[in-house]
Formats: sequence, structure tokens, C-alpha cells
Amino acid sequence: MDMGTDDRGAMYGDGLFETMRAHRGDVPWWARHWARLQRGADALRIALPDEQQTHASVRTALRDGPIEAVLKLRIARGGAGRGYAPASADVPAALHLSTHALPETPDAIAVRWCSTRLALQPALAGHKHCNRLEQVLARLEWGDGGADGHDAFEGLMCSTRGDVVCAVAANMFVLADGHWLTPCIDRCGVAGVMRGWVLEHLDVAQRRIRPDMFQRADAVFLTNAVRGILPVARLGTQQWAPHDDIAALRRRLAAAHPGFAVD
Amino acid sequence: MDMGTDDRGAMYGDGLFETMRAHRGDVPWWARHWARLQRGADALRIALPDEQQTHASVRTALRDGPIEAVLKLRIARGGAGRGYAPASADVPAALHLSTHALPETPDAIAVRWCSTRLALQPALAGHKHCNRLEQVLARLEWGDGGADGHDAFEGLMCSTRGDVVCAVAANMFVLADGHWLTPCIDRCGVAGVMRGWVLEHLDVAQRRIRPDMFQRADAVFLTNAVRGILPVARLGTQQWAPHDDIAALRRRLAAAHPGFAVD
Repeated sequence: MDMGTDDRGAMYGDGLFETMRAHRGDVPWWARHWARLQRGADALRIALPDEQQTHASVRTALRDGPIEAVLKLRIARGGAGRGYAPASADVPAALHLSTHALPETPDAIAVRWCSTRLALQPALAGHKHCNRLEQVLARLEWGDGGADGHDAFEGLMCSTRGDVVCAVAANMFVLADGHWLTPCIDRCGVAGVMRGWVLEHLDVAQRRIRPDMFQRADAVFLTNAVRGILPVARLGTQQWAPHDDIAALRRRLAAAHPGFAVD
Repeated sequence: MDMGTDDRGAMYGDGLFETMRAHRGDVPWWARHWARLQRGADALRIALPDEQQTHASVRTALRDGPIEAVLKLRIARGGAGRGYAPASADVPAALHLSTHALPETPDAIAVRWCSTRLALQPALAGHKHCNRLEQVLARLEWGDGGADGHDAFEGLMCSTRGDVVCAVAANMFVLADGHWLTPCIDRCGVAGVMRGWVLEHLDVAQRRIRPDMFQRADAVFLTNAVRGILPVARLGTQQWAPHDDIAALRRRLAAAHPGFAVD
């Protein structure tokens, strides 16, 4: 009895994934996603399948689907799952694709602090690998709705050192003393594709950010590749008004990526 | 298109596993393995399947197999894998079983230091969860054989704080200044079932152990539930002779667990 060739993905989380915004049967930011996947594969020493063939499989998976969708891609290292050593480096990685409906994107989002912390692991930091129990535990800290059951909600995560790092499924940007900042992700956290785009289009410094800096921020937004740029409106009793910088950045994003174009 | 109900296991490593020594169609230490699994399930808030039914499935899987075997059990949280939140707490966890040939157990083993470190994550420490990329990366540091291609080999892992914690797939015990010690596993590492048995049958203190303490030890052994008690004979140029305490402990193990009985 055996569990098939994809054991390592399930047994050890020995793989990588990408969650991508699809638009009219393709992934507009395919090159950005593939580049991040390649960085993760290099770090984990996983041999990726051919990019062109994978992109073709992605377009096939999206064919006849809705104009807007989410495409999830997962790569699992090849080889058997019993024992940590891969059976052979020659066994190709397994590719899994699935399509999903695009979730509704709110105009703004409320956040809460999670008590689950992110461990410091520079060897894995930045990569979108499949060891995500910290995110699962953090997400389990609240239910389906917000504190009052109405808001769209995200959870803020700190590292075990106490620095604010990210939201459970998003990167974050804060405006402090007139400067936009985003947490360093050299010890934990994920190098989001949307984070990468923002770093190219907004004057942002990468810093260690303490919770009190976050609380004193003049504006906050979250980013991910599916929902784009999400202004944060509330943290507990604290409220943030819409900010011109964020609105301007959203307009630039709409111009740069057809999936985020304003109707 | 969807990847089935076991997405969370593969996408996030959102599960637990046990690798068990089977003997004559059953798992002699089933109760110990189940107890550890239950502790992990409580920590991760995964609802386990019924123990009696699972044990019956295990015996069915082992039926008609060899006298000695390895049985691997994996539990994946129920619910879909898109988004970190489980779709519903009512979706039962998925159970996977597979049987494998018993690997040869050497009389003694050589060890080497791994450069991959274990991150400090008290929320996951001790549990045999499916987020094992650190072990995979550590195991990738050496090939099939030992440094000289002959010895059975294991890799020693330190935490990011620099304490010696475990071998890649085993716990460790060292004799230092006349006292047996084993690393604390409150911040990283796995609470091995065989480690638990040794703690009950040998006078051992749980300590933070620095690499130089390890190097100065008078005797060292590794433990895991498949290979039992493995004396360490060599680390680089350093050699350890067989030690009476270890031989005595192996005799006690042979009396306590039929799979480890000496022929």
C-alpha cells in the first residue's frame, strides 16, 4: 500500500505554491509569480517543470472559465515520502492546478492582532512554501466574520522577536512620520508578488516595525496578489480615514494589471 | 477543477503523522503513538478520527504483511485548502496509512553536523506535524552514504539559538560528567515516542545542550520509534566506544517491545 508519488507534499509540506489573479483566461502577472516560484525552488533545491509548458497548462485550466478567477498552483518535490531524503533528484516535481471563484474585495478592511507568532527561519523566509501551520493557527484565532460579524477581517502577525511582519495572507505597508514603511522579510514572512509591485511604484523603506509604530501609523494598507491593495480602516477602536497615497496607488495598479481595473 | 478534500495537508502541511514500528500485524506501542498524536491534534485543533476504528484500520493494513514492518499514519485536517481558514470544523480529518519495509538497523551510527537550523516555535514544538522543510533541507546536506560512503549516517541539528536539539529523524541522549542528558524540546524538536520510553527507564535530565558539551560527551545515542536505540560511534574524527549503559538500555527495550527483541 502506498500513497502515490506526491507523498512529500502532504507528509512534509515539501513544496511551493502560488495563488494568482487570473483574468480573461490568463495570469497577467505570470512572470512575477514564476520568478518568485523559481527563487523558492532554488532555496529548496526543487527542480521546477518547464515554464512554457506550465504556463500552457495554466491557460488550459482557465479556458472557458469566468473573466475573473483565482488560479492556485502547487509544486511538490518528486520522490517518495518515507524518510526525509528525496528518493532521487531525477524524479520530477509534481504540478497541481486548481481554479477558484474570485472572492469579493472590500473597499477597506479591519485588522486584529493574532497571538500566534512567526518563528525566525532565514532559510525559508520570503518563499511561498507549503509549511503554513503558523498561518493556519493564526487564522483559527477568529471566526468567519469580524469582531462584530460585519467587517472583512485580517489578522496581523508578529515574529517571535515581537516585530510586526505581515497579515495572515497579506503583506503590509504603514505610513509613519511621513514615510511609507514595510516590514523586512529576511527572517520570516513571504515576499508577496503584490508587495514587489508596490516596492517598485511607491517610495517605501523596508524596516523592522514594532507594534506601537503600527498603532501610531497615519495610514495602513495590505497587499496580496488576489485582492490587490486593501486599505486598512480599523484596528480595535482605532480608525484610519482613506488616504490619498493609497487611492493613487490603486489607480496605478488598475492601469498596470487588467484584473484590478476599476469598472 | 479541484484537488480533492485533502488539499490542506498538501498545501499547508496542515496535519500530523506517526511513523510506527509494526510487529506481527499490530503496532506494539500504539497507545504511545496515539497519545502523542492526540497532543498534536489538541495543539492544532484537529479532530482525530475514532481511535478504535483507526487501530482496526491499522491492523487491516498490516494483515498478511511481514512480521516486522513500518506503518506510517498521516492525519490531514478536513476542509478545503484555499484560504487558511478551514471550511468547516465539521469536516472530518482525512486518515492515510501506508506500510513499508523495515530498514536495516546498524549496530552503531556516525553523525555529522547539519548547517540547517531549527527555528524556535513553541506553538509547534514537540508535535509531529507535517511542516518538515527544515528536516528536508538538513537531510539534503548529505548524500546516500556517510562521509566515506560506508557508515550509516545521521545529521545533528541545532536551533537558531545554537543549542543541539536532535538528529534529523531521531532524538539524542548524551552522557556528560556522569549524567545522561537530552535536549529540551519546548521551543523546537519532536517529542519522540522512543524518547518518552527512555525518559521513563533511564535517569535523564532535559537540558539545553551546547555543541561543545556534545563533543565532550562520554557516550551518545539516538532514538526513534522505528530503529530503537542507536549508539553513536563517530562524529568526524571523534570516536565513541560501546557503553554499558546503552547496552543495558537496549536489553530493557528488547524486553519491553517485541519488535526490538534480540534474535
